[in-house]
Order: sequence, then C-alpha cells, then structure tokens
Amino acid sequence: MGLRIENDDLFILDQTLLPHEEKWIEVKDCNHMVSIIKNLQVRGAPLIGVSALCFLAIAAENGATQKELLTYSKLLRESRPTAVNLMILLDRVNALLNQENISLDKIIKEAEICFEEDVMLCEKLAQNGEALISDGDSILTHCNTGGLATVGCGTALGVIKKAFENGKKIHVYVDETRPLLQGGRLTTWELQKTGIPFTLITDSMAAFLMAQKKIHKVFLGSDRIALNGDFANKIGTYSAAVCAHYHGIPFYPVAPYTTIDPEIQCGSEIPVEQRHPFEVQGVKTAHGKLLFSQENVETYNPSFDVTPVQLVTALVLDKKVYTQNELIDGALKRDFSNT
Amino acid sequence: MGLRIENDDLFILDQTLLPHEEKWIEVKDCNHMVSIIKNLQVRGAPLIGVSALCFLAIAAENGATQKELLTYSKLLRESRPTAVNLMILLDRVNALLNQENISLDKIIKEAEICFEEDVMLCEKLAQNGEALISDGDSILTHCNTGGLATVGCGTALGVIKKAFENGKKIHVYVDETRPLLQGGRLTTWELQKTGIPFTLITDSMAAFLMAQKKIHKVFLGSDRIALNGDFANKIGTYSAAVCAHYHGIPFYPVAPYTTIDPEIQCGSEIPVEQRHPFEVQGVKTAHGKLLFSQENVETYNPSFDVTPVQLVTALVLDKKVYTQNELIDGALKRDFSNT
Repeated sequence: MGLRIENDDLFILDQTLLPHEEKWIEVKDCNHMVSIIKNLQVRGAPLIGVSALCFLAIAAENGATQKELLTYSKLLRESRPTAVNLMILLDRVNALLNQENISLDKIIKEAEICFEEDVMLCEKLAQNGEALISDGDSILTHCNTGGLATVGCGTALGVIKKAFENGKKIHVYVDETRPLLQGGRLTTWELQKTGIPFTLITDSMAAFLMAQKKIHKVFLGSDRIALNGDFANKIGTYSAAVCAHYHGIPFYPVAPYTTIDPEIQCGSEIPVEQRHPFEVQGVKTAHGKLLFSQENVETYNPSFDVTPVQLVTALVLDKKVYTQNELIDGALKRDFSNT
Repeated sequence: MGLRIENDDLFILDQTLLPHEEKWIEVKDCNHMVSIIKNLQVRGAPLIGVSALCFLAIAAENGATQKELLTYSKLLRESRPTAVNLMILLDRVNALLNQENISLDKIIKEAEICFEEDVMLCEKLAQNGEALISDGDSILTHCNTGGLATVGCGTALGVIKKAFENGKKIHVYVDETRPLLQGGRLTTWELQKTGIPFTLITDSMAAFLMAQKKIHKVFLGSDRIALNGDFANKIGTYSAAVCAHYHGIPFYPVAPYTTIDPEIQCGSEIPVEQRHPFEVQGVKTAHGKLLFSQENVETYNPSFDVTPVQLVTALVLDKKVYTQNELIDGALKRDFSNT
C-alpha cells in the first residue's frame, strides 16, 4: 500500500502528505532513500525494512557494484536507530554482500523473498489476532499499523480488518498519536477506505472511555520486542497499557517475528530515539506548520516508549499468540534467541 | 493577569492569541461577553466567574437596570455548562437581583468582594499546597491553572510558583493538553515569565516519565468537585490520575471551595460538555488552522473527564488539605453541603 515498483524504479507513497494528498515519490539514489526514511515519508517498522531491501535490489538491477551495495546498506542501516526490522532484513542482505563476488541476482531474490514474506506474515498475524476479537467489540488502537506500515494488510490494523471482513461488528477508537499524528492522519485514512466504523480521539481521552466501559480491547503494533516480552512502540503505548491494565482491559501488541530483537534481553536495553523539539512545540504537516508554544521552550520528545511484559495480556506473533505466562516463562528466548 | 478594569470598561486578555500575542479585548455588551466565554478567550473556572461578575458590575455602573442585569446574568450562566464557579458566583448576585428595587451599588460591591476573595483564595491554596512540595521535586501539571485561570496567582500553578518563590529547586513537566493546548500555549507562557524550569511534553509522554521516576508529584486544577471528592477537570486529568496511581505518585487537585458543587453527591452526576469535532480533527489557533484527518471523520471530544476520589491522594482547598481518607469519610459533605 505504501510502496510500488515500476520499470525498475522504486516509488514510495509520501505518508507525510496523507490524508489530504496521495503522492508517490520516485527514489533517486541512496541519500534520497535515507532522507525519505528519516523524514518519515515512509514509516512503519516492516515497511521501512522492505523498502530498504527493494531499494538495494533495484540498485543492483540498475548496475550498482557489490561494494556500492555494501555502502548503501550501511547508510540505510543507520537511518532509524529503533527500527529493528530494518537492521534484521539488512543483515540478511549483508550476509550475502560480505561473501566474495556474489551474483547480485541473489540480492534481488532476497528482496523478493522479504516482500512476499511480509505479505504472508501480515496474513498470519491477522488470522491469529482475529480470534481474539468478539462480535460487538470496541477496540482502541494507537499510531498506524495497517497497510501503510507494511507491504501486507498490516499488523494490529490487519487484525482489525480481518475481524471486520469476517463479519464481526466492531468499532475502532483511534488515538491521534501525538506528536506526529499517525493515528489522526493515517489510520483514519485507512479505516475510511475499508468502511470500518471508527471514532478519532486525542491520546488523553482513551482512559476516560475505558472508565465508561466503551473500550473492550487494545490492539497496537510494536517496533522492537525484547526476549522477555517487553516491547518498544510509538510513544503513548505505555500510557495506554497502564490504563488498560487498571481497567482490566486486554492489551495485545501485534508484530511479525522480525520485530523480535534476539540480542535484547529486556526492555531497558532498547535505545529510544529523541526527536526534534519542534514536533512537541507545535505541529508540522506537509500542509502547514503551527507553533503552539514559544520556540525556545525545552521539550522531551521520545519516539518510543517501552512497555513491560507485565502489562501485555498476550503477544500476537505470526507463529502463534503468546500468553503473558508463556512470555514470562521465556518462550521468546526459547523460540527466537540466536544462541 | 487575564482581566483588567479601566475607566469603567472591562478588558479581557485574549487567551486564544497567547503565547504569540498579548491582546486585550474591550467588552462591548453581554452577547460579546458570552461569546468571549464560549470562544475560550477567557478561561479557567475561577476567572470565568469573576469576569462575569465584573461584567455585571460594570454594566450596573454604566446604567443597566435591575431587569437587564437579571437577563445578562441568565445569559452568562448558560455560557459554560461545566463551570460551576460561574454558576455559584452568579447565584450570589442573583440572590440580590431577585430582591425588589435593590441599590445596584450592591452588585458592584459583590463583584469587588468576589474579585478580592479570588486573590485571597489563591494565596491560601498556594500556602496549603506548597507544604506538599519538597526541594528537588519534579512536578507534572495539566492544562493551565495559573494567573491566567484566576485573578490571583492561580490554583495548581500558584502552588508551584509559591514553592519556587520559597527557594525550592523544582522542575515542572507541562502536559500540552490536547485538544486545546492550554498547557503548551498558556502554562509554558506563564512559567517562562516566572523563570521556573520546565519541559513541555505531549499528554501521552507523562506515563513513560513516571516509569523512569522523573515525575514525583502531580498538581492540577479542578472545574467541579462532588461532595464525595470525585472531581471533573480538563480532559486528560483522569488518564494522568490512573498513571500516577499505578506508579505510586501522589496526585493532588488544587481548587478553591467555590469549585465544590454542593448539589452534586458524586462524579457520575457531573455533566460533561462535548465540543466541536474540529478540535480533534486538527488544531486551530488564532495564528492558523491545520486539519490532520479528513473533515468528515467522527470524533469524541469531551471537555472534561471525571476522576474518582480513589485516585486522589489529597485535595488542596483554601480551607485546608483534605486527605483521601477524610474525603471518603464525607468531610466535604460535612463542611460544604447546603443541607
């Protein structure tokens, strides 16, 4: 939904322009691709990873040397420090690129595999997660985890879409997701396209809806999962987790196995990016810019927060749904650790 | 800070233009005053009440009849359904206006008393609350509760200012307070004027700071307090209360006794205003307007939420600080009930 390949050219749907404009960017070179990732014109952990691989495949197709591809891969790997899918997928390509004189067709093949795998992973997530949704459920979601975050149907939003496709009557409450408003801008756009009924709220309203028993379940994505089940996700996730826990509402992160970082034992080891103060001092979209506070105001602006496994009812992975008890018992370490 | 009287004219500082512009509005007539309240150009429960009384006093001064004043009072009383201070103060004036042929000097006198009382109440709140702040504390606050919300030094922000004046080294985390951004626009402006160190955050970041032990106490205002200690305040307050409770962080609403509604037994009886969808679909300040989602998107937009007494560590009133146990034991009913 957010990526297209045409005549050996890579096109990225500029997500900063949504929902008001649907514009495709033709990727020129590696610096361009890095800036597209950094500017969040492409976003969503799985989509970032697949986009980077597609870029390398197309560069190979267009005659880049193995050495050049290694340089590109290094630049791409540094473009978003918290997006572990990007690193894991690039490491798969690097394992090839570090061999001597490989056939670059292998790079192209690897990108195709990753692309197809993402579509298939989304489908499995949707099937696994859908079983947790009952007819009549009202579901809170945060950020964007749909077809704009993956090349498939999405992660958490894919689960929600699948329940709707299966005829379950559901309603979605969409956190706007300050500061970058991925919920307000992107999730609303995707839900409108699918016809799923939804209500947009500010992040601070979710708890009050929970108190009124208007939210029955929380489904959201993840940007990085530690082996103990702690996970990093868009800022505001932890707040939603604490509020869901207080109200006894099931809380489900949904993510493909590529989000699990086999090097990270627990949440406190996950590095958290700090972003530019302007994002908190005001709001900037491609359609305008508004400063709320004075410009010299000090801000705190973490991209992500970390939610401990104690607040996770169950983790929806492509392989299966892991209950909190299984996570605490070390199931991820057993199933996904490198050692 | 938000209201000025000059040569029998009432001037209101247009809070919608802050922090970028300090413009005083000369109030023309009652409809103008009502629209100023409805448009939130004047805001803050105590300040709204005192402004309405000052308007009536000045109307009396400029020759309005007793009958006209009664009509004005009725119009003003309906301008903000949740602001109980407004109603309580207007009821005091109405008690006079409903007597036959009173001297209108009494109205003027009553407005003066209310004005002075607000200044005095703020001072008492500041003294009572300040004792709860320790040297080195980091304090979370929500919305604006300062000199822009009262004619005195403020409620919760008055407490914070007093601690700073008394030489305590403190740091304030300011919730931006979506959707209307009173924290980002107004509290930052006031804190900059006083020199108190602060950091602006989005509402969804507070919980993550709490998890990192970077917030030691929460002080915020109230728009209406029920006799059992439940209270209504700006949307987002309940979410902050739940998160503070989960992390064992003391949570203190601060308000003058005029905020207690002696007719309301518990929080569920407090009516909650729903505001315009545009406020959630985007942001509109006097300096511009940005739509994030599509215009036809359904929203939920309560002005306030209700926090139960179980999440209140203690309630700072002008009379004294009421502990949770005292509140649950019915102290407000004993001390403030009409019956």
